[in-house]
Amino acid sequence: MSSWPGPGDGVGPAVTCRPEGSTSPGRMTRVVVEQIGAFVVGMIILPLRRSVAKLVVFTLVMGCYSVNMSSETTAGARPTRQQERRAQTVREIKGLAMEQIRQGGPDALSLTGIVREMSMSPAAVYRYFANRDALLADLVVDAYDELADALEGLDSAEGPEQRLDAVLRGTRGWALQHPNAYRLIFQTSIGSGADFAADRLIPAASRSMAVLVEALAAVGEGAEAPRTHKPGAVADAGAIAASLPDGIAGVFTPWAERSGLAGYPTGVLVLALLTWTRLHGIISLELGGHLAATGIGADTLFELEVGAIRAEAVALPALLAAAVAAAAVPAAD
Amino acid sequence: MSSWPGPGDGVGPAVTCRPEGSTSPGRMTRVVVEQIGAFVVGMIILPLRRSVAKLVVFTLVMGCYSVNMSSETTAGARPTRQQERRAQTVREIKGLAMEQIRQGGPDALSLTGIVREMSMSPAAVYRYFANRDALLADLVVDAYDELADALEGLDSAEGPEQRLDAVLRGTRGWALQHPNAYRLIFQTSIGSGADFAADRLIPAASRSMAVLVEALAAVGEGAEAPRTHKPGAVADAGAIAASLPDGIAGVFTPWAERSGLAGYPTGVLVLALLTWTRLHGIISLELGGHLAATGIGADTLFELEVGAIRAEAVALPALLAAAVAAAAVPAAD
Repeated sequence: MSSWPGPGDGVGPAVTCRPEGSTSPGRMTRVVVEQIGAFVVGMIILPLRRSVAKLVVFTLVMGCYSVNMSSETTAGARPTRQQERRAQTVREIKGLAMEQIRQGGPDALSLTGIVREMSMSPAAVYRYFANRDALLADLVVDAYDELADALEGLDSAEGPEQRLDAVLRGTRGWALQHPNAYRLIFQTSIGSGADFAADRLIPAASRSMAVLVEALAAVGEGAEAPRTHKPGAVADAGAIAASLPDGIAGVFTPWAERSGLAGYPTGVLVLALLTWTRLHGIISLELGGHLAATGIGADTLFELEVGAIRAEAVALPALLAAAVAAAAVPAAD
Repeated sequence: MSSWPGPGDGVGPAVTCRPEGSTSPGRMTRVVVEQIGAFVVGMIILPLRRSVAKLVVFTLVMGCYSVNMSSETTAGARPTRQQERRAQTVREIKGLAMEQIRQGGPDALSLTGIVREMSMSPAAVYRYFANRDALLADLVVDAYDELADALEGLDSAEGPEQRLDAVLRGTRGWALQHPNAYRLIFQTSIGSGADFAADRLIPAASRSMAVLVEALAAVGEGAEAPRTHKPGAVADAGAIAASLPDGIAGVFTPWAERSGLAGYPTGVLVLALLTWTRLHGIISLELGGHLAATGIGADTLFELEVGAIRAEAVALPALLAAAVAAAAVPAAD
């Protein structure tokens, strides 16, 4: 398991009530608390008596339990007709949610609006998603999966550098084709995983980060002999590795271990994270219309950054070797 | 005049009705059209008869004319009591607007809410800002000015590299201190200048871009002799210049000329634009809480990028010289 930057420790688990969910007592307590919270809002609208409301909350919770139980007992078997209907409803809810987000951004997502559109009862939607954040988290996981599918499905390239270029271009290409999914991941607090659903976001995010790290590392491995791309370019100098302060490895170790990337050199990990922030800088400004305003094509700026990242990936091994060698020799003064 | 990326040609002018505004006929037509549009909304709320509405629109337009005229005739003189009151009201409107944005983002900005807060009549606010976008554009210009003030006011540094570091850190520091102003500039369509107020945004944006370009160029000028920052770093290789395709200069010329940066080498301009997108990548992810989730301090990632940019700025002159020399020699095959 590796990941795009993942959340720290102590982050709460997802609280969606779905077949693949865990049924631990702590988790169910959260589901109950969140569903009660959601239901209090519902009661303002619906003229239900309190006793009826309690009954409905109880039914919802038991519904979660029974669905989770049934999914465990039928693991591996053909989905039942009921499960198929449920999956279809979830797809429909997500489709309407993405349409709301397309029209008005993540803030526009409204369970009430979806309920109205689907002619469901307000309470029924909570059988599928415990609350709005749970639905958002599901959409973020879907988006991460789609990005990873796009990157893993890239045509095999000529060599490691062409492969790296393809991964970088593939990331931008996916973002431009799915701007709302991209914004959902990288421009919402749900996407950050800081306060919600970290247990599902880290594995989902890990797939695309792994593709990037592998591509960067492969360029370095294929570049042990000095090589030149352009007049004046010397292979054994890369801006990032040149600036690595002593002891930086320890800072990256916890994230690398948590993400299954501990085997990679620190220089590759640093370059991978900075590649992520650099791509995000260009892509988010492009999506916001800020690059078009310069009159310089986003393609041009992006390709220049691709070239910069590629050159740094090529230069990393020699630089790291030099840094190790220098560290073994006592300083002159 | 230089700029952060500025809008392309054919972009409409600002339409605020303010003392420093132009009074060209085309501009006033826009003011009339926009004020009528705003007023139609007002009429839904206010029980005014149509003839009264027409009179008020006429009064507003003439008010704009007279204010503009009076500012021209009193240029250089001490502001009148009326002008002081007007400036005070504008400050108050902007203060309330920034408070709305602080609480709910740029989308939360509402002229109606400001009118209510200030106990003004709905029509009166249009004497100060033609519409919501005009107010937003003013806030963006203010934000750009504050960023430039912060960068221009940095303590004088030891040398060019320390100066560059200070400019990069100063940009992030300002963004962290003024996250809403930062988002207003770089995360709203008004901030992009693509469709509004380009004539005021370009000069405002130019000041901070000029500080960055000058700092990058100064590092290159002070780095003509090869120098080493860290073991393994060779000065005459920079990732960006190594990746400059032939003929890239022409792509940057229109923007550079429009921004008063035509005297700088293309490599410096490219590095300046990529520095902007890179800083935005880290800063926007940091503001969104996405970096905290990695467990790797934003300080660390940012300093690594500062080091990378510094190393590239140092390497640029030698690389550009090598590229020029190579271009003069026929290719071997």
